[in-house]
Amino acid sequence: MDKTIYLDNAATTFPKPETVYKKMDETNRNGCVNAGRGGYHLARQATALIDDTKKRIIELVSLVDSSKVVFTPSVTIAMNQILQGIPWKTGDVLYVTPFEHNAVARTAALCSKKYGIEIVEIPLDINTLSIDIEMLKMMFIQKQPRCICINHVSNVLGTIQPYEEIATEAKRYNAITILDAAQSLGLIDIDLNRSNIDFLAFAGHKTLYGPFGVGGFIINSETELMEVIVGGTGSDSLKLDMPKQIPGRYESSSPNIVAIAGLNEALKWRKDVTDVLEKEQNLTKYLIAKLAEIPEVKVYLPENLENHVGIVSFNVQGYKSEDIGMILDMDFGIAVRTGYHCAPYIHKWIKDEEYAGTVRVSVSYFNTMRDIDEFIEAVNSILDDK
Amino acid sequence: MDKTIYLDNAATTFPKPETVYKKMDETNRNGCVNAGRGGYHLARQATALIDDTKKRIIELVSLVDSSKVVFTPSVTIAMNQILQGIPWKTGDVLYVTPFEHNAVARTAALCSKKYGIEIVEIPLDINTLSIDIEMLKMMFIQKQPRCICINHVSNVLGTIQPYEEIATEAKRYNAITILDAAQSLGLIDIDLNRSNIDFLAFAGHKTLYGPFGVGGFIINSETELMEVIVGGTGSDSLKLDMPKQIPGRYESSSPNIVAIAGLNEALKWRKDVTDVLEKEQNLTKYLIAKLAEIPEVKVYLPENLENHVGIVSFNVQGYKSEDIGMILDMDFGIAVRTGYHCAPYIHKWIKDEEYAGTVRVSVSYFNTMRDIDEFIEAVNSILDDK
Repeated sequence: MDKTIYLDNAATTFPKPETVYKKMDETNRNGCVNAGRGGYHLARQATALIDDTKKRIIELVSLVDSSKVVFTPSVTIAMNQILQGIPWKTGDVLYVTPFEHNAVARTAALCSKKYGIEIVEIPLDINTLSIDIEMLKMMFIQKQPRCICINHVSNVLGTIQPYEEIATEAKRYNAITILDAAQSLGLIDIDLNRSNIDFLAFAGHKTLYGPFGVGGFIINSETELMEVIVGGTGSDSLKLDMPKQIPGRYESSSPNIVAIAGLNEALKWRKDVTDVLEKEQNLTKYLIAKLAEIPEVKVYLPENLENHVGIVSFNVQGYKSEDIGMILDMDFGIAVRTGYHCAPYIHKWIKDEEYAGTVRVSVSYFNTMRDIDEFIEAVNSILDDK
Repeated sequence: MDKTIYLDNAATTFPKPETVYKKMDETNRNGCVNAGRGGYHLARQATALIDDTKKRIIELVSLVDSSKVVFTPSVTIAMNQILQGIPWKTGDVLYVTPFEHNAVARTAALCSKKYGIEIVEIPLDINTLSIDIEMLKMMFIQKQPRCICINHVSNVLGTIQPYEEIATEAKRYNAITILDAAQSLGLIDIDLNRSNIDFLAFAGHKTLYGPFGVGGFIINSETELMEVIVGGTGSDSLKLDMPKQIPGRYESSSPNIVAIAGLNEALKWRKDVTDVLEKEQNLTKYLIAKLAEIPEVKVYLPENLENHVGIVSFNVQGYKSEDIGMILDMDFGIAVRTGYHCAPYIHKWIKDEEYAGTVRVSVSYFNTMRDIDEFIEAVNSILDDK
């Protein structure tokens, strides 16, 4: 096999911009020290790089105070710190959307077991696959939200959720609002000034085009989170509580300066390259149009394709999703993901049980129309061989 | 300044072997995908690389079952997962050594707040700075241990603790035994067959000479840990509990394949280079001998230098530790760490309050006698200038 056609960008964007690779290698070789712990110049350089990266993250959401950015090793850990960090009381209600990833769903379930909170799933409009806002309002009246976790872009369907509208409804009850922007930050404009979002969680290695090893959350709220993960911070070392100061309070352990350096370059790249969303949308529309021409293919899409980006789930009549993935890999060198995609709630809505999940194609800025053509040709070949 | 003389290897070893850099860059460029989630060949390659790395880790402690290795983003997270994961009962007693890092000490304090357990610090023999085993035995009789956390190598003093002896005592009470090998795995032989250690936590980026972004723990016990950090595992996605299977149960979120690839190369390097300990010991002995020649310098060392490696803490009469660090950096380009080193308990034993901690010099395989000479010359210059 000559080359993989990589269409699993919702798992992690690959490749990254060339400058990301270069900067990571350079940092590895010249500056891979423990920021914030040593006072020597390499450590101060590392600290400055972290600060600059946070500044670039906070600018993405139109805020200015970069001390409100917390870096964690992954968005999963960010979600654990946020959700497990909320000062829950027994009987509190946590609303979630049907699009949540297990970073949210399993963490919510753990909070339920630990703190006796109730998890309530917001319903979809089954015809449009969009959040049923009227139903949501009714549910909030009947059972007031203490907190809501809103998936921004579904990692299964690519649907974009109207988080501002949902958060505004939740804020009528002073609920804590959390946005899971793992599949959106950097790709879709988010303005935290005009939205009622308290915490936004992000992954460095997906739509931000950075490396594995850095994610985090943005704090847009006065809510103080309880200690979830604790350890050394290089500050107040004699105290057994985490320091009060934000973001240090939520950042234990040595920062991964190599990953952060890569993210920094990705953010610079992102600032220069202004057509990422446009290119991904064009690829996605082309993909959808081509899949629509194949009668045996069932595509799972929202009614309104304006609220959709980058990720398309489908199945082929007569095949388990996994089988399609395997043939695409073995016979055509095409990498897609199949199955349930770590998203436990959505499958009852799209009714994909007979296929054991979906085949998911997800594009990035670095894919081409040719990639989509080859993918479509491959699907047609599978059907021709049947 | 031409070049930094880096003597902060206890924070993170720097540089790493050249092959670590090369492999990380290559993996970034050619194989940076989500292992264990996709079934395509790049993902399978990534999974195979993780398995091989775990095999190399487990061999280091003379075990064979690599499924008993859990990768986490850092040793801090490993310690949180272990300590917070123990099924504590109110009133349980957790023993700790005076050498613990805040990855242990703060996590223990959090467990105390959450579960009502008691934290008891094992005393030192003040003359030798070694664990007072006879006193420990007495304490165990009076207050039985439910668990003990044993620091292997102190990140402040470089002392090597007799963990086998301590664990054997703790096992008389069926206590859970945890070894913090952040400053030792890869450097000092550890045989988990002949020791009574249930969990061993390690950092990839310190004595293993790997990169930031991967640490973990080795399970040598049937004790099942409670869920601490949860999320997607790429398996059993429809279930809201973490899967039962080890190690997946403890490994949520996308694995950092680039960091793991670097660790893999570090482990290969480590296998070929057999004189790491010897070289670090020689550098350390030379450093100690040279510091002993300076009357104004107070060094904090154990009585028996056989139980010591790589890390030397000292102070200079009339200077705060931080000031020495700053002058070494600014005037001599020498990187050391100063202060309390994220270790809250030890300072009352070494009585370094007047210096606000210690100046810590820590060597790696890549330091030279010349580095030590330049460092000693710098300390002498500071004193000459006084």
